[in-house]
Amino acid sequence: MNPEVLEKCSQARRAKSILANSPATLKNEVLEHIANALEKNKDEIASANNKDLELIKQKDDYSKAFYDRLLLNEDRIASMADGLREIAGLDDPVGEVTRMWKRPNGLHIGMTRVPIGVVGIIYEARPNVTIDAAGLAVKAGNAVILRGSSEAVNSNRALVRIIQKSLTANNLPAGTVSLIEDTERSAAQDLMKADQYLDLLIPRGGASLIKAVIDNSTVPVIQTGEGNCHTYVDNSAEVESAAKIAINAKVQRPGVCNATETLLVHKEIAPEFLAKAIPALLDEGVEIRGCEETRSHSPTELNKATEDDWATEYLDLILAIKVVGNTAEAIDHINHYGTGHSEAIITDSYENAQAFLEQVDAAAVYVNASTRFTDGFEFGLGAEMGISTQKLHVRGPMGLEALTTLKYIVYGSGQIKR
Amino acid sequence: MNPEVLEKCSQARRAKSILANSPATLKNEVLEHIANALEKNKDEIASANNKDLELIKQKDDYSKAFYDRLLLNEDRIASMADGLREIAGLDDPVGEVTRMWKRPNGLHIGMTRVPIGVVGIIYEARPNVTIDAAGLAVKAGNAVILRGSSEAVNSNRALVRIIQKSLTANNLPAGTVSLIEDTERSAAQDLMKADQYLDLLIPRGGASLIKAVIDNSTVPVIQTGEGNCHTYVDNSAEVESAAKIAINAKVQRPGVCNATETLLVHKEIAPEFLAKAIPALLDEGVEIRGCEETRSHSPTELNKATEDDWATEYLDLILAIKVVGNTAEAIDHINHYGTGHSEAIITDSYENAQAFLEQVDAAAVYVNASTRFTDGFEFGLGAEMGISTQKLHVRGPMGLEALTTLKYIVYGSGQIKR
Repeated sequence: MNPEVLEKCSQARRAKSILANSPATLKNEVLEHIANALEKNKDEIASANNKDLELIKQKDDYSKAFYDRLLLNEDRIASMADGLREIAGLDDPVGEVTRMWKRPNGLHIGMTRVPIGVVGIIYEARPNVTIDAAGLAVKAGNAVILRGSSEAVNSNRALVRIIQKSLTANNLPAGTVSLIEDTERSAAQDLMKADQYLDLLIPRGGASLIKAVIDNSTVPVIQTGEGNCHTYVDNSAEVESAAKIAINAKVQRPGVCNATETLLVHKEIAPEFLAKAIPALLDEGVEIRGCEETRSHSPTELNKATEDDWATEYLDLILAIKVVGNTAEAIDHINHYGTGHSEAIITDSYENAQAFLEQVDAAAVYVNASTRFTDGFEFGLGAEMGISTQKLHVRGPMGLEALTTLKYIVYGSGQIKR
Repeated sequence: MNPEVLEKCSQARRAKSILANSPATLKNEVLEHIANALEKNKDEIASANNKDLELIKQKDDYSKAFYDRLLLNEDRIASMADGLREIAGLDDPVGEVTRMWKRPNGLHIGMTRVPIGVVGIIYEARPNVTIDAAGLAVKAGNAVILRGSSEAVNSNRALVRIIQKSLTANNLPAGTVSLIEDTERSAAQDLMKADQYLDLLIPRGGASLIKAVIDNSTVPVIQTGEGNCHTYVDNSAEVESAAKIAINAKVQRPGVCNATETLLVHKEIAPEFLAKAIPALLDEGVEIRGCEETRSHSPTELNKATEDDWATEYLDLILAIKVVGNTAEAIDHINHYGTGHSEAIITDSYENAQAFLEQVDAAAVYVNASTRFTDGFEFGLGAEMGISTQKLHVRGPMGLEALTTLKYIVYGSGQIKR
């Protein structure tokens, strides 16, 4: 194993039991301390960030969007600090006893919430994730190993130095939060194989990063992100409200995972609904790709949707529209093409609402609301570590609880097994 | 992908939504139907099993223990049938709404328990696992793909044929439970890579099987089994009761994962406790490997424990004993050498009991009881699918709930995101 990865894994393993037994007050003080230190050292952070920005400007594949994700200006530093203060304000999930019962032999058996242990995070060139992810993991009592992208290494190094100073100032080990500074791919791959040290690995980024982690990791992984979401307008829907919801689900922020990518419309309501919704969507700058029937109801010429469109997460102002025969057909389409993220039905039928809620297989299933609500803040969980689209451990927005596990505690009085 | 694996994965994916929406009554009827069919077809099963038994008798590495695990006689068939009837008697976890709350914008957000989907199980030459695992997975509403060992393929084929007949007799797809009959290693490896079809893969068997699955699988895995468990006798323990618990934890069934492998003893109680416990353990046929101080308190000569002993899961009538200075030292030893399975303190000190419960990092932590209680039946969960020693999704005994996941259901009234 890469010596840096090994050293930081060992430090994290030593730190985890100290963090696991640290009270919420101490963890909150550290988060506040880091928040203040970020603001105090904003020039140092900006200058480190500037090194990264200068380097990427010289690259052939330089893009403005990439530069913007990498940029840390005064506003963004303040917003990272505020994020930490918000995390400090959340309830500590550690120590909750979720259930407790008594067995016939007198054993009292309970389940109590404890930190996961050592959490690894592999992410792309967004230095705010460094603060955000470290803050959540520490609040839940974990040690953290961060592996950011090479393009952000100067920024991340400056941020982690500030975090570590705050940790030691509060008598916590610096190894609680560490950064793998080796930017070679092999260092990331060693981290994926470090199952003797890491309890969980979370990839945060695009589909190719997530796939690389799933394919190579022997550490348990939580898969986040991909969202080919649908909104289905049932024949009983109220047209005005359905159009508002569908438009919101597409255009309010098209580049995120909970935006709707395909609109399904019941054939009976299609003429009236599409006559209203299509011009409104076009007005918002949406490119529409329709099935044959959708195109026949459109006042203007629309692009033709292909099989690929049903399976695509555009993350853009593009919407596929398909007319379906009934709710069952909509559910089948969603369960076939969807990625198990967020799915909505717009209906006034009790029966269809219930069928949709029960039969659609996704992290979040909605009746009469925009798919855009799937996130930690909107669900009332506070900050989140991404949206899980897998079924193990946690599904949907990953709040602090997702960074904990349960252990059984058993109070006996001399019981032996017969 | 191996065509058989692909075909059975596709069938399971089609079956899963039917199972997910099948009521408990139907699932229970199927389980009862299979139980009756097993008893009715006991001769057919025994004769298929006999083929497997004859084949392994001709092998060079034939062992009586292996033969015994593979054997299906009338008693064992009856016991498999009873197991299914017990599973039918358990509450269906599917459909429970675990929490529900209302957001300021009027959205009602709930979490409801749903099946995982398609569960793969890779296991060794124990044909009873075929019935047991399939029964649990189906009760929790899942489709199942079984991959048993080549030595049991005739037995497994006969059992799965019976299961499939019962499924179709109850109008459920035969593909709900299927067996990968190709006994080549490559078929198992294809199953481990079938993340487009499988939601979960559970290896049931020895350490090498589990490691192979973890190293190769891109499907989320639950790690089960390894148990290097400890019992720590504190200085405040009542000697008589402590000895009873320690002996029970070692000898009641030494070959299982929740048996204690190392006994830790506080130095102040060591002379009195060991004088009582060592002869009693030797009487039970236990081989003791002691640290220097343990050996000095033994009335008879003991083998010397080496570093390896602290790290070994004997699964046998062998016990390592170490004298420690205090509870903190015992906790450190356990957190260093343990596998996170089951750990016990025997004490009358409130402070030490609480410290042990809080600081020991394991699936089940006990005060004043035998580690042997860590199992689904003893915890009141009913039948179990193994003991998880990882931290993701489920920790400790895996009952029906471990074969389910949660989905968010959101009841709106036209909400759009601002």
